[in-house]
Amino acid sequence: MSDSNGSNAPPQPIECRAWVAYEPKKPLKLETVIVNPPQKGEVRVKICYMALCHTDAYTLGGLDPEGLFPSILGHEASGIVESVGEGVTSVKPGDHVIPCYQAFCDACKFCLSRKTNLCGSVRQWTGNGVMKNDSQSRFTVKETGKKIYHFMGTSTFAEYTVVHEVSCAKIREDADLESVCLLGCGVSTGLGAVWNTAKVESGATAAVFGLGTVGLACIEGLVHAGAKRIIGVDIDAKKFEAGMKWGCTECVNPMDHEGRPIQEVIVEMTDGGVDYSFECIGNVEVMRSALECCHKGWGESIIIGVAASGQMIQTRPFQLVTGRVWKGTAFGGFKSRVDVPKLVDRYMNKEIKLRDYITHQMQFEDLNKAFDLLHEGKCLRAVLKAMPEK
Amino acid sequence: MSDSNGSNAPPQPIECRAWVAYEPKKPLKLETVIVNPPQKGEVRVKICYMALCHTDAYTLGGLDPEGLFPSILGHEASGIVESVGEGVTSVKPGDHVIPCYQAFCDACKFCLSRKTNLCGSVRQWTGNGVMKNDSQSRFTVKETGKKIYHFMGTSTFAEYTVVHEVSCAKIREDADLESVCLLGCGVSTGLGAVWNTAKVESGATAAVFGLGTVGLACIEGLVHAGAKRIIGVDIDAKKFEAGMKWGCTECVNPMDHEGRPIQEVIVEMTDGGVDYSFECIGNVEVMRSALECCHKGWGESIIIGVAASGQMIQTRPFQLVTGRVWKGTAFGGFKSRVDVPKLVDRYMNKEIKLRDYITHQMQFEDLNKAFDLLHEGKCLRAVLKAMPEK
Repeated sequence: MSDSNGSNAPPQPIECRAWVAYEPKKPLKLETVIVNPPQKGEVRVKICYMALCHTDAYTLGGLDPEGLFPSILGHEASGIVESVGEGVTSVKPGDHVIPCYQAFCDACKFCLSRKTNLCGSVRQWTGNGVMKNDSQSRFTVKETGKKIYHFMGTSTFAEYTVVHEVSCAKIREDADLESVCLLGCGVSTGLGAVWNTAKVESGATAAVFGLGTVGLACIEGLVHAGAKRIIGVDIDAKKFEAGMKWGCTECVNPMDHEGRPIQEVIVEMTDGGVDYSFECIGNVEVMRSALECCHKGWGESIIIGVAASGQMIQTRPFQLVTGRVWKGTAFGGFKSRVDVPKLVDRYMNKEIKLRDYITHQMQFEDLNKAFDLLHEGKCLRAVLKAMPEK
Repeated sequence: MSDSNGSNAPPQPIECRAWVAYEPKKPLKLETVIVNPPQKGEVRVKICYMALCHTDAYTLGGLDPEGLFPSILGHEASGIVESVGEGVTSVKPGDHVIPCYQAFCDACKFCLSRKTNLCGSVRQWTGNGVMKNDSQSRFTVKETGKKIYHFMGTSTFAEYTVVHEVSCAKIREDADLESVCLLGCGVSTGLGAVWNTAKVESGATAAVFGLGTVGLACIEGLVHAGAKRIIGVDIDAKKFEAGMKWGCTECVNPMDHEGRPIQEVIVEMTDGGVDYSFECIGNVEVMRSALECCHKGWGESIIIGVAASGQMIQTRPFQLVTGRVWKGTAFGGFKSRVDVPKLVDRYMNKEIKLRDYITHQMQFEDLNKAFDLLHEGKCLRAVLKAMPEK
């Protein structure tokens, strides 16, 4: 593995290790890849820590019809800028960064709106697994010369990756990279769903469906917002311990109420329903339950989970006409390059947890094992050590 | 027909005419009915003008599984208080009023919330076609002695009706009762959907599906809110003239784009979709179109129309995860007894139209003819003269 680090010399191709997803439903394969230099508006990042998220498993599972193969998956990571392409001004080699699958260009109509974080500046290229400048990938397998697609504009299951400058959040250097890598997706998404999308008020009641990392981050966000009652919902009672530790006031298991929709149970428990609900699973039936357990007149339900392709949500329109609101969120509504550094500050100020979500610390070589843990529901976040910081 | 009007004598039963809906899908029958005196918390109102709304036709059409028969339909009217029951303080005999199917008690958790207008104080009784005080109807057919159910807590297709005090909005006496009767449902609903539920900002773009009274009132609300582009959508091109007169900047007919979903057409017309859309029909397929023609990131769709029982709305959850919001509204979010008098003021200040919605002026005897006009799509509002004001 070589490392181009000259301050004046132009960046050279890097040879390093990466996990390649050759086809759906197959284990990833560890390969030696060539990572080409960053072009105009691009940043090459040395990945120090990387975590797994269900969206990686979703794409690897073949459920995403837009999933491209072969590709390098991964979108929750932290690292250090190795080199930058022409015109890049917001980061320089040596900067600590978090690659962000949701870009922020500060110029498109989405970035200029205060209502959304869905920057559109590079989406059409990241959706096609390539970089904007030349519509090509920066990854090639050394042995075969095969081009490998990027994934979500991040491709963090590699020792080095190339991202667009607009997808690269610079963070403070005193933050431990192992913890803050979680801000690349799950934790930020849960917190932001509560703070930005739902804008939960002090004294509110809430139900959180799915007590994985995103659900727990919702609970943490709710505790911060001053919610007075937080109901955790999961069909795996083993997850209730974490739910209560994070701040649930109670947990319910839909399996304990068979023959009765869980929304009815929650409406009864809460004398009419909750003020806010959060779907953190990606199951369209649960999305309906989450909407319908909301209080008439004002209850809002936020969809966070990603459903399998082609699936539809449904409900009676009466649910909305009587005042419930159905919303969704991506990356918790955070404007990535602006807000991720602030989340790092809040972590450093001990306002938000991060280490508590890390249930497994593993090595770069262990990625397929980490996928198994995720599928078995045995981990919150497995964080894998990729390259050394120094 | 007798009229109890003594200021000290207790109110007596009144014999008058009313239109009785004996069964679904049959014409209404004009009957002589006995209207019992108002009990505690009730108000007996002489109906001066009444209009038809699609919800009356919906229930008469047998589409409402909770529709009760025989009943006296009608929920858009104006009148004068004839007598009041024990404890009634907000109105007195002689006051001009608008019966409101959406009550306002100022005491329940809904009325105390700033987020909703769905007062729950009498709903369980009005839903069962009776009055709260004794769970009985105040209507009996003179000839047969048959009890007749109330409808929506208003039953305005009668010369006299009894409503709960919480459903009786007192209005200024210089407002012409023929015009302001429209504030009992359709016009208020459309205006409020824009002002209260969507909270449309100046400069916004919008699509309005269905150019009947509610849709036109949305357009009027949008013009007031400063919307810069208002797209009217209807499959009946004859309605475009009114749409443009009310303030549409353009109208589109889905029939002109066969084989292509209208949401795609609107997304293309607007470079990404509208900021707000309003479904004023009650068709679940149109509700989906209305949601999906909204702009990614911030578009909000408001369901106003009442769908047939059992029907479901559906969409891909991705629509919400990418920032669209799905909402509904009932009576436009107006807190009835507080806001209806203010709408009357705005009408008197010439800020809002009312007379323009009245396409047919008819007599009390003409109700079945008015239903025919409604079904044929030939009228906006037919207003029928019931009892003389003096």
